[in-house]
Amino acid sequence: MKAILLESLHQPLQVKSVQVPEISSGEVLVRIHAAAFNHRDLWIQKGQYAGIIFPMIPGADGCGVVEKAASTDDKKWIGKEVIINPSINWGGNPKVQATDYVILGLPHHGTFAQYLKIESRLLCEKPAHLSFVEAASIPLAGLTAFRVLFTRARVQHGEKVLITGAGGGVALFAIQFAIAAGCEVYITSGSDEKIAKAVSLGAKGGVNYKKENWHKELQQQSGGFDAIVDSACGDNFAKLVDIAKPAGRIAFYGATLGAFNSGVPAKIFWKQLDILGSTMGNDVEFCEMVNFIIRHQIKPVVDSVWDLDKAQQAIEYLSKGEQFGKIVLSIRL
Amino acid sequence: MKAILLESLHQPLQVKSVQVPEISSGEVLVRIHAAAFNHRDLWIQKGQYAGIIFPMIPGADGCGVVEKAASTDDKKWIGKEVIINPSINWGGNPKVQATDYVILGLPHHGTFAQYLKIESRLLCEKPAHLSFVEAASIPLAGLTAFRVLFTRARVQHGEKVLITGAGGGVALFAIQFAIAAGCEVYITSGSDEKIAKAVSLGAKGGVNYKKENWHKELQQQSGGFDAIVDSACGDNFAKLVDIAKPAGRIAFYGATLGAFNSGVPAKIFWKQLDILGSTMGNDVEFCEMVNFIIRHQIKPVVDSVWDLDKAQQAIEYLSKGEQFGKIVLSIRL
Repeated sequence: MKAILLESLHQPLQVKSVQVPEISSGEVLVRIHAAAFNHRDLWIQKGQYAGIIFPMIPGADGCGVVEKAASTDDKKWIGKEVIINPSINWGGNPKVQATDYVILGLPHHGTFAQYLKIESRLLCEKPAHLSFVEAASIPLAGLTAFRVLFTRARVQHGEKVLITGAGGGVALFAIQFAIAAGCEVYITSGSDEKIAKAVSLGAKGGVNYKKENWHKELQQQSGGFDAIVDSACGDNFAKLVDIAKPAGRIAFYGATLGAFNSGVPAKIFWKQLDILGSTMGNDVEFCEMVNFIIRHQIKPVVDSVWDLDKAQQAIEYLSKGEQFGKIVLSIRL
Repeated sequence: MKAILLESLHQPLQVKSVQVPEISSGEVLVRIHAAAFNHRDLWIQKGQYAGIIFPMIPGADGCGVVEKAASTDDKKWIGKEVIINPSINWGGNPKVQATDYVILGLPHHGTFAQYLKIESRLLCEKPAHLSFVEAASIPLAGLTAFRVLFTRARVQHGEKVLITGAGGGVALFAIQFAIAAGCEVYITSGSDEKIAKAVSLGAKGGVNYKKENWHKELQQQSGGFDAIVDSACGDNFAKLVDIAKPAGRIAFYGATLGAFNSGVPAKIFWKQLDILGSTMGNDVEFCEMVNFIIRHQIKPVVDSVWDLDKAQQAIEYLSKGEQFGKIVLSIRL
């Protein structure tokens, strides 16, 4: 089969010919129709991720059709259109991942291939209202957004919610999910164009974080936030503390700007704030997330679709951060 | 009546003769038998507290006997031994204090006086197993400890709990409450003697935070913590993140060492930690806290008792941080 095979660090993403994987008990073989990029794939290519091994097929997000099943119980999956939960071995505690938890696409071979071997318990039927490309956009970003927004930040209908960094995959799902849940959603971005696009999705307002007093402007627009979903931390974190309402929750799943800023603790305790770390989610959250997408007929925002042999150009485009929505690979036979 | 009256900044605590307060509807007059110090009193004396006004009687903690009641409904309180909830105007939202929230002893006259005027709704019967001196130790520190431990850090029977800075009033109540709740309690202190005293109260272990690798030693003793109650933040905060178990909670009600240290956010989200700010508590928490003390027959740790005319010596002693438990004023007629 054709697959993107990384054989060493800093190698461009190139299509190679590799063996179709053999499946064993509890596993199925999925013919992948579309796969999506995440920043994780970029970090792996650059060697900026723990536990990298070679050779490996990257890719956490995928969507396709089940072609084979090893166990009799799994024969029912054959012919089904599926998306794949990339959270492998979350384990029995819904609050936190087990020590052997991994994400699809390292160390296990990932979705940037014509075929994927995967445990059947990680399958979920593709939402009928979505194309393969749209559905392939969901798994990693949708699951991360669902957990940080609902499980961790505990957003409720009618609350004012700020999502920072509109444009990224997780942020866009968080925006769509929070709007669907009846929240009043505000966003930040470094691009006025992305703010306008997020508003066209249903966000109530937004501010360009390149403005000096962006947080004061957001405070004026909104009156403060019951919940904030962030992935940057760094110098901006203290400003998020300032615009959180008393008893507010600030949940984050990344720290692209690094450590917290100074001057924060007294405001956090006086305002009774919750600062909540979050990652991708557990198996139940994955099912709930897919059901939520079906119930609210949410269409993932796809930035662009690339052929498998254009994977290197696609990942270079991802690295520029100019996209609005997911960057997807179309994988033909 | 005799009272400690602050008339300007940096003035020593001196006994003055002032008018017995007049009560009006909903208020009672309490003959104070004992009052306790908090760091807040020291900060007010030094001018390091917001909204200081003069002249004022300091003191948030008090215990005594009701002598008069303005309203018929409150006559039932007359002759009762009471302790006083110093959380004034918490308001209707249990999660966070209202904007007009204040603490007894600024701007309202406080407990360092022979008589106190107070709203009857802030009264609670003195636990029968405690002396006036012991009961006067409870209000501010006990309420802060109860909220941070149970409402915010959500500690459960059997969990491993770390309380930092054993010796202070809040930390000691947190230690006693967590032990009573069936937790395995560990402590830190800058004094080996205080650690030994906390262990004699029932703490399982502790480490002197002046040791370079105090957090690693605690990790070895305990295997990590489900919940941590802190009042320091600062450079040590990153170490607390290191020794919190996955899905652990770190709750804090102070930041005596200032802003958070660097390098923290990725560990917080990967471990799914909750970082939770907390202050004194609401009216319901005050009642629950007093009931908890009665149910578990907890005896507050009293460091020393001073006569009212020794208040200045007592507050100087407080400022040295050498005490283990509450510093109490005995107030005779």
